[in-house]
Order: sequence, then C-alpha cells, then structure tokens
Amino acid sequence: MPSEFDLIRRHFTRPARHTELAVGDDAALFTPRPGMQLATSTDMLVAGTHFFADAEPEALGWKALAVNISDLAAMGAEPRWALLALALPAADEAWIEAFARGLFACAAQFGVDLAGGDTTRGPLNLCVTITGEVPAGSAVTRAGARPGDDIWITGEPGRGALGLAFLRGETALDAAAVTPCIDALHRPQPRVAAGLALRGVAHAMLDVSDGLVGDLTHILEASGTGAVLDLAALPLGALLAAGADVEFALRCVLGGGDDYELLFTAAAAQREHFGALARRLDLPFTRIGTITDHAGSLLLRHPDGSERPPECRSYDHFI
Amino acid sequence: MPSEFDLIRRHFTRPARHTELAVGDDAALFTPRPGMQLATSTDMLVAGTHFFADAEPEALGWKALAVNISDLAAMGAEPRWALLALALPAADEAWIEAFARGLFACAAQFGVDLAGGDTTRGPLNLCVTITGEVPAGSAVTRAGARPGDDIWITGEPGRGALGLAFLRGETALDAAAVTPCIDALHRPQPRVAAGLALRGVAHAMLDVSDGLVGDLTHILEASGTGAVLDLAALPLGALLAAGADVEFALRCVLGGGDDYELLFTAAAAQREHFGALARRLDLPFTRIGTITDHAGSLLLRHPDGSERPPECRSYDHFI
Repeated sequence: MPSEFDLIRRHFTRPARHTELAVGDDAALFTPRPGMQLATSTDMLVAGTHFFADAEPEALGWKALAVNISDLAAMGAEPRWALLALALPAADEAWIEAFARGLFACAAQFGVDLAGGDTTRGPLNLCVTITGEVPAGSAVTRAGARPGDDIWITGEPGRGALGLAFLRGETALDAAAVTPCIDALHRPQPRVAAGLALRGVAHAMLDVSDGLVGDLTHILEASGTGAVLDLAALPLGALLAAGADVEFALRCVLGGGDDYELLFTAAAAQREHFGALARRLDLPFTRIGTITDHAGSLLLRHPDGSERPPECRSYDHFI
Repeated sequence: MPSEFDLIRRHFTRPARHTELAVGDDAALFTPRPGMQLATSTDMLVAGTHFFADAEPEALGWKALAVNISDLAAMGAEPRWALLALALPAADEAWIEAFARGLFACAAQFGVDLAGGDTTRGPLNLCVTITGEVPAGSAVTRAGARPGDDIWITGEPGRGALGLAFLRGETALDAAAVTPCIDALHRPQPRVAAGLALRGVAHAMLDVSDGLVGDLTHILEASGTGAVLDLAALPLGALLAAGADVEFALRCVLGGGDDYELLFTAAAAQREHFGALARRLDLPFTRIGTITDHAGSLLLRHPDGSERPPECRSYDHFI
C-alpha cells in the first residue's frame, strides 16, 4: 500500500498559478494582490450527513470545492487558494484518483490553486477551506438589505432537492429531468461570475444552501429587516417540467438545501440592469419579493393575495 | 436542544482583533498588512486516529489550534486568522463549551482570531485552518538545508510520545513527570517566538509531528541533502528523569509524534547566537547533528562512533 506521502504527491500536486509555495511544506505561501481584502471560508462534508458513503468520488471532489467557491461568490470575492483536509477509512487509490479528478476539474474551471492540505485515516470527511480576493471594502455581506429592496434569486433553485428526493425514492421524475436534477445536486455550479458582477449592485447576498426560507432569514437577521416573498414569482418552471406538483416544487425551493444559487437584494431602480446581466451570463435572475422594515418578519404572499409566515423550516444539522 | 446557529453564536463568537468580518457571514474578511506574504495550513484531527474519543474537550480545543499554529511557527510566520470546522456526533453543549474554552485560550495566547467556521453532525472530527503573515520572501521552508549546516532542535522532544505510552499503559513514569508529559501531549506549546526569531537565521525548518527521523527526512528530501544525527547529543534528560530507559527515550525522540518542537538547520557560524536566543526565550536549543552532501542519506552516529541508518520508521497514517 502506498504511503500517505506518496498518495498526496501523486494525486494532489498540480501546477499552481497564484501560489509561491504549494503542497508539501508546513504551510503554503501566497501573496495577495495590492489593495485586496481577503475572504475565507471553510466547509466540512461528512459521509452520512451530507452525502451517501458510496457516493461517486469524482462528484464528491467537485462538490467539496464547489460549495466553498460558492461561499466566496456570495461575497463577491474571486476564489484563488484552496486547502483540502481529507479523512479516509482506507487508502483506496482508485477512490483518491477519482476524487482528485473531480476536485481539480472544479479548481481549473474557477482558477483556484490547491495550495495545501492534510490527509488522515478516519470516517470519510472532506473539509475544504477557500481563500479569495475582493477589492477592499467592496464585499457584499448579509447585512446590507434595505426596506424597499427587491429580492432576487439566480438560476433554477430546488433542482438539487428534487434530485435528492428522487435518489431517495420519494418522488418520480420525468426522464429528461433526472440528469439535470442529479447534476444540480452532485455537481453544483457556483455562481462566481454573477457574484463578481453583483459587487456594487447587490445590497446583501448569500448562497442558498439550506433553502430559501432559512437563508433569507439569515439576511433578515443580519440586516434587521423583514421580507415578503411572492410565491407566484418563484421560478418553479424547471421543477414543474420535471414532474413535481406545485406543492412539492415549493417545498424544494423554500426548504430544500444544496442549491448554491445566489439570493440577493438590490434597489428597485436596478431592475433593468438584471435583464442585461442575465443575458450576458446566460443565467436567469428572478425577482421574488421585497424587503420590508418589519424586522424579523418573513411573510409568504400566496396566489390568493394572503400573506402568512412559512410553515417549513430550514435544514438544521442539529434539529 | 439549541440549534446549530445558536451554538455557534454562543460559543464561537468572540471579539476579533485583525478581522473586519468574522464568524457569521458566508466568508470572513480580513486585510493583510502591506508587504506581507501569507502562510496557510490545515490540519484534521480525528477521534480514534489522533485522540481518544473520550478525550477532555478543553485540551482538544487547545491542541486543534496549537498544532496548526505550530505549522506557521515552522515557516517563521505569525499566526493571525483561524477557521474551525467541527463534526460532532451530537450537540453536547457542555462539550462544546469546554472545547471552545481550550480553543480560545490558545487563540488568546498567540493573538489569533477565530475568523469563521462550520459545524455539522458526524463522527468527531476537528479541522482547523490557520493563516498568518510573514514579510515577503523571508519564510523558512524545508528546502534550504546546506551541507555543513548544524541541525538543531528546540525544547525537550519525546515527552508527548512518552505521555502517550504512559496513557496506553506501555510504560511507567516517575510521578513528577506524569503531568509534564501528558501536558506535552495534550497542550503542546507551538514555538511561535522561536520561529519568528529564526527568520533570516535558519536555512530549513519544520515542526516535529512524526518523530525526528521522519521529519528530518522531509528536510533532506526537500533540500537534496543528507544528515548525520548524533545520538549522544539528543536532549534525553527530561525523558530519562521521567523514568524511561535510554532505548525507550530514543524511540520516543526518533519515532514519536506529537512534539511540535522546531527542527532546523543553520550555518555553523551561527552557533553562539543560539545560546543567547535560548536564554531570551527560556527554551533549550540543542545541536544534534550535521547536514551532509550525501543526498537522501540519514545516518545515526552511535556512542561507539559507528554510523548506521535508523531502524525506526516515522508514523505514517496509511502504513
């Protein structure tokens, strides 16, 4: 069996583009560009909690990095350097090779260096830390939403949750929708280009990982505002076309995790900007509600015009 | 049961000193000082591999951060920002409170901000990522050892391994040595002040986590050199006083992990410098060998004058 050091060298050492010293020393060394603020985030994915233990390793490699990149996209930051800590039950070289292939495919697409890491024996656990750059003072946090702001969402949220429900046997799917929904779950596309384009435009932003209701609540708490979410405006088209009924589609969008679309608020005066941006990025932008001054109040406007608090809860790992 | 978000807020939110935006958004934001290169490293500690599952959580909190800080010390970098990813089998608030107490004690001692993190449910796993600063170009890597360099070690290596052997019932210890050896194992002191003082002096450096033989081998491989390690020069005093015989003490120093002392090489002309440095830092510096030009050759000089390759192997998680 090859040693830990051999495995790391063979599978996790690739040329680095923004890193002076990458994998192999006590620490990696890199130099941020002048005038840049750094944004950094870590995410831990655990077998049995975030994915099935027999999940396809190439998809896991992609996703472990993609969900981290998405956190930087949600700040308007450009991802640059990743660290990977990996606990494996055994040194299964075929697994490691496929995992590394997925990870580096994502790294290459988004211009990220794997700057370093750690491997160890243990129950399967993937922890990626990402660091990136944003011009000083221009990061978009969760705290900037203002009463009167429009609420926007990118893409077609809910497909990941629908894919998960399909894999669990909880729902049928139209044959043509199986691959897109499972891809949305297993190979999420972090919205980096959108995040960068939203600097100076979005007032508050995050990426949707726990469902619209739970994540919008984070913005409301951080901003001290409320919101009305217009159910009739939610982009359910892809979910309905996949065979979900309206109620299930709403559950997927409002409470389903693993979407990694950007949820943001912006001044109503910016509305026309998003049409052009959507065309340029080939990515839908949907206006789904309004920020209010009722701090902490989240209401869903139903098609009959009534406004009521949501019934579903966000996914909370400890509930 | 409190939710994940409540637990994070209650136990992992403390005032930050070098971080513009810490725990609670998609990413943390910080601004490096001008002229600084960044050093970053991640370490994953897994129950059953690196510590006993019932280990005292306060000590675990200390150690999870300390071993990362040690990686930066070994580069001559100043630790500044840490991220913590934590998988827990259950939301045991007493455990989390004690763990956070140990983590923040270490953070306070070394001036580190907890800038962000992630908590999730899963088999107990602690992954800390540390980022720090070093004046551009002055980091000390593993690759700079030159033939003729002296080899030095800080402190009293082997005490962690001796403490572990005691806890496993493999050896007896003098009563007075129990606490220092177990403290060396559970609350290692990263050698940050020594690492900073060795910038511009040490040619190659790392922190000893896998035993002297294994870690010195990393320096030799990175530098393309060899070494002769003088067994009679090794600082065994603390281990012998603790009750270990010479052979067991040598095994602890040469092959035992978890020491976090600094192993470095420096020009022979610098010898007198280290006496003064040892006094200033109140930390022993011991000269234990010489770098040679026989690439890849590590020899142990025995007290009878013979020179032979080591018999023990480093600790390798996958062997």
